[in-house]
Amino acid sequence: MAKILVLYDTHSGNTRTMAEAVADGAGAIPDTDVTLKSVDDADPRDLFEHDGLAVGSPTWCGQMTWKLKKFFDESTCVWGKVEDKVGCAFSTAGGQGGGSEMTCLSILSVMLNYGMLVFAVTEYSSPGMTAHYGAVAVGEPDDRELAACRMLGRKLVQHVQRVKGS
Amino acid sequence: MAKILVLYDTHSGNTRTMAEAVADGAGAIPDTDVTLKSVDDADPRDLFEHDGLAVGSPTWCGQMTWKLKKFFDESTCVWGKVEDKVGCAFSTAGGQGGGSEMTCLSILSVMLNYGMLVFAVTEYSSPGMTAHYGAVAVGEPDDRELAACRMLGRKLVQHVQRVKGS
Amino acid sequence: MAKILVLYDTHSGNTRTMAEAVADGAGAIPDTDVTLKSVDDADPRDLFEHDGLAVGSPTWCGQMTWKLKKFFDESTCVWGKVEDKVGCAFSTAGGQGGGSEMTCLSILSVMLNYGMLVFAVTEYSSPGMTAHYGAVAVGEPDDRELAACRMLGRKLVQHVQRVKGS
Amino acid sequence: MAKILVLYDTHSGNTRTMAEAVADGAGAIPDTDVTLKSVDDADPRDLFEHDGLAVGSPTWCGQMTWKLKKFFDESTCVWGKVEDKVGCAFSTAGGQGGGSEMTCLSILSVMLNYGMLVFAVTEYSSPGMTAHYGAVAVGEPDDRELAACRMLGRKLVQHVQRVKGS
Repeated sequence: MAKILVLYDTHSGNTRTMAEAVADGAGAIPDTDVTLKSVDDADPRDLFEHDGLAVGSPTWCGQMTWKLKKFFDESTCVWGKVEDKVGCAFSTAGGQGGGSEMTCLSILSVMLNYGMLVFAVTEYSSPGMTAHYGAVAVGEPDDRELAACRMLGRKLVQHVQRVKGS
Repeated sequence: MAKILVLYDTHSGNTRTMAEAVADGAGAIPDTDVTLKSVDDADPRDLFEHDGLAVGSPTWCGQMTWKLKKFFDESTCVWGKVEDKVGCAFSTAGGQGGGSEMTCLSILSVMLNYGMLVFAVTEYSSPGMTAHYGAVAVGEPDDRELAACRMLGRKLVQHVQRVKGS
Repeated sequence: MAKILVLYDTHSGNTRTMAEAVADGAGAIPDTDVTLKSVDDADPRDLFEHDGLAVGSPTWCGQMTWKLKKFFDESTCVWGKVEDKVGCAFSTAGGQGGGSEMTCLSILSVMLNYGMLVFAVTEYSSPGMTAHYGAVAVGEPDDRELAACRMLGRKLVQHVQRVKGS
Repeated sequence: MAKILVLYDTHSGNTRTMAEAVADGAGAIPDTDVTLKSVDDADPRDLFEHDGLAVGSPTWCGQMTWKLKKFFDESTCVWGKVEDKVGCAFSTAGGQGGGSEMTCLSILSVMLNYGMLVFAVTEYSSPGMTAHYGAVAVGEPDDRELAACRMLGRKLVQHVQRVKGS
């Protein structure tokens, strides 16, 4: 059983829409348990009690929102205890070139600090759409962007299975 | 007179197309001298002899191409002597989420090392299209992406005028 | 008159010590007005009403603290209105290799989003000590690290003078 | 058997010294095969034929050297085929604050593009010395910096064992 947490902050609802697609992609793989959770409801133990973690944020100044940063700043009780966890990122921005890749990097970078194994996606979900630092979207996610989210979710489960030896 | 250098590497020609648009945007401002140059023809003195520098690269693994890196690695004769220069970046990638923002950041980061003042763009050139780390494009640049390139070029001249006191 | 704001968050007091040194370096240049302010007391207008901005943060997971991120997330009333301002960064970490450079980059990256001109330092303040992304320290800042902070402050004023034409 | 490749570029010899320490740390774990290789001798298949990859570079403008970038730019025959590989980074710079963390990030970022799982280190190898983005050194590596390199090598093998299920 791969236990996956999709953790997100959302402002307009767009990042939540992406989070649902990531969760769908992960959940489509058999023997996977997926939890979708807003940062408002998150607890540090969530980081410890799941095998895989996808974190999504609106792009605010090219980095995760302060709420997500606060969650990680204050979850240090599990810092260094999550080396067998796998992490990935997603973000939605107001525009192409608006910082969604950078926001994904800010999330991966915090996960590296915690000791997690992180990854991104080499494949293209459709021509001209990929997720080399995590899944990204401009404004309300369209079908191609949601396909990239589902791809990210599937890939997360595959990596978790690899690490768990299942 | 603002002396602007638009320096680029290109593989498919797409980054060159962006470079031309950046040069057009800069050149549209009166009293501006714009040079467009491939990295194959560049000389370290180019960094010293211009007031503003826009550097463009294809997105290869989310960073400038090795040819551009080689140019900067080997131009250290002007390192620390370009503090009154202004720099910005642009990049084209194979896909949205493919690393064009990251490549812009890699260019800005090298410019910071050299001591330059760097900037990016807050404005949107059209709905859903901006250049918060530099101008970006997916594949062959479309009209909206070229508009962002011209905006970047104009902004570069404006910043140079500010720094030169003209 | 160059108006400089040194804005910081601090946990143990180390980042405040760095902030004081940055302020000292800036203030040592004639005709400079320096304000030192904790993020707890900051107002978005502070970004608008100064010519130069040095922002310092403890290194928490390689990025500015959530309090500083909250300040920038909520200061968008001046977003895009600070293109004639110059910015730089400093950070203290628990260890060498602990993320202080990354934290400086996170600060510069937010400033780029706001439209500011940003810079870092090419010079070495002493052998083995520089500030290529901003001034950094490990734990309680020592003399060499404080010298780098003062260098950063001086350089900030010099860049502001350049941009203001004074 | 964990097959580890420690791949490096070196200018003064300092990065090679770090590479040897990373290799020592990895090799100290039983049932591990470690290869130490200069980028001058590297082949794209090296990325494919090892389970774990530590890449080290001198810090040149806060990013891997152009030689290493050239190697990755030209190894795309294995791009997307190394998802079961684990990667990490190390770098030596001329000064504290000189870009060694940034260089590690540039290496991890390329590995993410290739599809690898990447990690860094939460632990401190000694007071004031860690490797949150990879192992770093200032100039000729001292004992504390070499201890961090060995820690990185050990951790690489442990992660490979996790992923390989051994």
